[in-house]
Amino acid sequence: MALIVHKYGGTSMGSTERIRTVAKRVAKWARAGHQIVVVPSAMSGETNRLLGLAKELAPAKPDESYSRELDMLASTGEQASSALLAIALQAEGQPSISYAGWQVAIKTNSAFTKARIESIDDARVLADLEQGKVVIITGFQGVDENGHITTLGRGGSDTSAVAVAAALKAAECLIYTDVDGVYTTDPRVVPEARRLHTVYFEEMLEMASMGSKVLQIRSVEFAGKYKVPMRVLSSFTPWDIDINEEAASGTLITFEEDEQMEQAVVSGIAFNRDEAKISVLGVPDKPGIAYQILGAVADANIEVDVIIQNLSKDGKTDFSFTVHRNDYAKTLDLLKEKVLHSVGAAEVSGDAKICKVSIVGIGMRSHVGVASKMFRALSEEGINIQMISTSEIKTSVVIDEKYMELAVRALHKAFDLDQA
Amino acid sequence: MALIVHKYGGTSMGSTERIRTVAKRVAKWARAGHQIVVVPSAMSGETNRLLGLAKELAPAKPDESYSRELDMLASTGEQASSALLAIALQAEGQPSISYAGWQVAIKTNSAFTKARIESIDDARVLADLEQGKVVIITGFQGVDENGHITTLGRGGSDTSAVAVAAALKAAECLIYTDVDGVYTTDPRVVPEARRLHTVYFEEMLEMASMGSKVLQIRSVEFAGKYKVPMRVLSSFTPWDIDINEEAASGTLITFEEDEQMEQAVVSGIAFNRDEAKISVLGVPDKPGIAYQILGAVADANIEVDVIIQNLSKDGKTDFSFTVHRNDYAKTLDLLKEKVLHSVGAAEVSGDAKICKVSIVGIGMRSHVGVASKMFRALSEEGINIQMISTSEIKTSVVIDEKYMELAVRALHKAFDLDQA
Repeated sequence: MALIVHKYGGTSMGSTERIRTVAKRVAKWARAGHQIVVVPSAMSGETNRLLGLAKELAPAKPDESYSRELDMLASTGEQASSALLAIALQAEGQPSISYAGWQVAIKTNSAFTKARIESIDDARVLADLEQGKVVIITGFQGVDENGHITTLGRGGSDTSAVAVAAALKAAECLIYTDVDGVYTTDPRVVPEARRLHTVYFEEMLEMASMGSKVLQIRSVEFAGKYKVPMRVLSSFTPWDIDINEEAASGTLITFEEDEQMEQAVVSGIAFNRDEAKISVLGVPDKPGIAYQILGAVADANIEVDVIIQNLSKDGKTDFSFTVHRNDYAKTLDLLKEKVLHSVGAAEVSGDAKICKVSIVGIGMRSHVGVASKMFRALSEEGINIQMISTSEIKTSVVIDEKYMELAVRALHKAFDLDQA
Repeated sequence: MALIVHKYGGTSMGSTERIRTVAKRVAKWARAGHQIVVVPSAMSGETNRLLGLAKELAPAKPDESYSRELDMLASTGEQASSALLAIALQAEGQPSISYAGWQVAIKTNSAFTKARIESIDDARVLADLEQGKVVIITGFQGVDENGHITTLGRGGSDTSAVAVAAALKAAECLIYTDVDGVYTTDPRVVPEARRLHTVYFEEMLEMASMGSKVLQIRSVEFAGKYKVPMRVLSSFTPWDIDINEEAASGTLITFEEDEQMEQAVVSGIAFNRDEAKISVLGVPDKPGIAYQILGAVADANIEVDVIIQNLSKDGKTDFSFTVHRNDYAKTLDLLKEKVLHSVGAAEVSGDAKICKVSIVGIGMRSHVGVASKMFRALSEEGINIQMISTSEIKTSVVIDEKYMELAVRALHKAFDLDQA
């Protein structure tokens, strides 16, 4: 019998009917003798409804006092859903109690709307668990040192659940969601995509950062920092399926490399079309040039992802990088106005019709030739690679966005990801 | 320039448009140099929506742990409306900050869903006021000594506002509502009813207890205990009316008898048809009989209002009392089953078609003949009086409910309440 944290997303909490189903599932785990802590999200749509009201009142006022009030407002969604779940559990005959973030001292910094958890007081929760209660802790929120309510930003309930699991030294943190696990790639693009039984923490981190929306990247980072075993599983399986079957379902995110476990070279294919490419051509190749270009971009608070500098030729070089598509026009304008002439470049150009496709796998650390296998698979499909970026466990390429699905399918097949 | 508490009800906070109007009104008071604390209710309909969700999950489970969760749930309504008002004020350029009950230590006992305020920490609020902020404090809620959120029960926001005003030693507590003051009687029954400029605390207490719905009776009791001057005024006057005109509008509830002020013998006519009459006839007239009858009723948690014992005749007496209509059938059954035979009564009978009409006035203390004037006015209309009950500043009669409006109009005229 173990201490286990369950996290349920907004869709799982989306109606009283669904909350009742969550209660039945949680009560099943409690009856099996486990100590259960639940971290629920707000009912789906509720956070948007509340923030929509705020927007009607103050269309744009992004200062700190406004952000503080947004957190006061948004935090009510999780408090309500937590109380409703406690009531549903009691109706099932399962003793339970709900706590707002401040009541169990989920201390955060004061960065309203995007706070970071600093500590959690576990004494109160452990005492309730000892008494046989299911303890429900509001996700997404905390309290700063001055007693102001904070929220963790979108998807913050995942992070809350992991932080609670870490503080309570939970055996596992089960993230119940509307998908049944982490897949080798998006099944909507590759019907043969397989669910992974396990995925390594670093792989998950790369996949999350590459746009795989299953888990919020901060929750994965947190899990890695505190070595909290996380499992992603579906909240839409019947609540009364066998508990052992349920406990082994979904995808487990692990931290230790186990030789017994499936050890594919590549675990998954991630992709996104959120980025755009910017090129600064004919730049004099001298020290400080990268800083002059990217420093101006960073000063405008624009995040840069892939960066490529071509080989120099005749004392000139070309410089390319990608930014989020939302920042594309702004970045082009900025470079044309402030950078083009000052660095003596010939031209600034851009392309928003690109995508990024990556292969991710912890096995790449110990295997050679993985990247070249990727490039060959793409070339066999006649896909031109525009940019390449590599890390220890990931190789990404930037290509024309019209080839995205084709590339993903080709790579999925080339690395035998459709084979169990 | 003074410290003033504003309280806005659910209707006044019922939409973002109305919240914006509240913000403009509050900002006007702040710009005039006053220190303003606002206690808002939840947006109208919100508390019912939340409690409705709870009811779907647990149709009936009135134990303490369930009540605790109801308070966690219901308290979110005021937290959200308070944050929205703070945002609306900031959009008006008025610095403001909102606090949940626990953040300014509105300490209550642990009677969930009907808690009583014990203390408020004023330091934080006063510091914000000094900085020129409008401080918004959630109504209706507090926190008990174990850090559990409590609510004060329906209408509790009025009580919160008065308690905050008492703690901060506010000059006045303005209760903004959907009526423009306290009237001599309900204008829907008597079109000539006049708004009172002032009403004495004790009169207000009697009127509130008699079903005049302008103020929650507990808030009036609280105001009396701490001598907080309260004013009931309309939130539907244009927000930009002259502040001095607004400050003198509505009805002021006062505590000191001022000879200068209007000193009518009778200030108002209250009435309700919430009660039903129960009679226990032919009861042996011996000591302990009242206790045997009413003790059984009290044990069943039924509240009794007017009680009459007839003069004894042949060693027998009749015993009549009123209960809330919702308790009528239950009380009759109880008496027939448990009391009728044990006290040796001849018969138990009841009548739900009654009403109670009262004249209220602090002047009754020092005037004789007020009650007989009331009885004459009723007799001139051919209205039979079934029960009479008197207190120092009130005389109530129970009559057939079909005469209610007629009786109210006759009394309003008999006591010249239509004359300024």
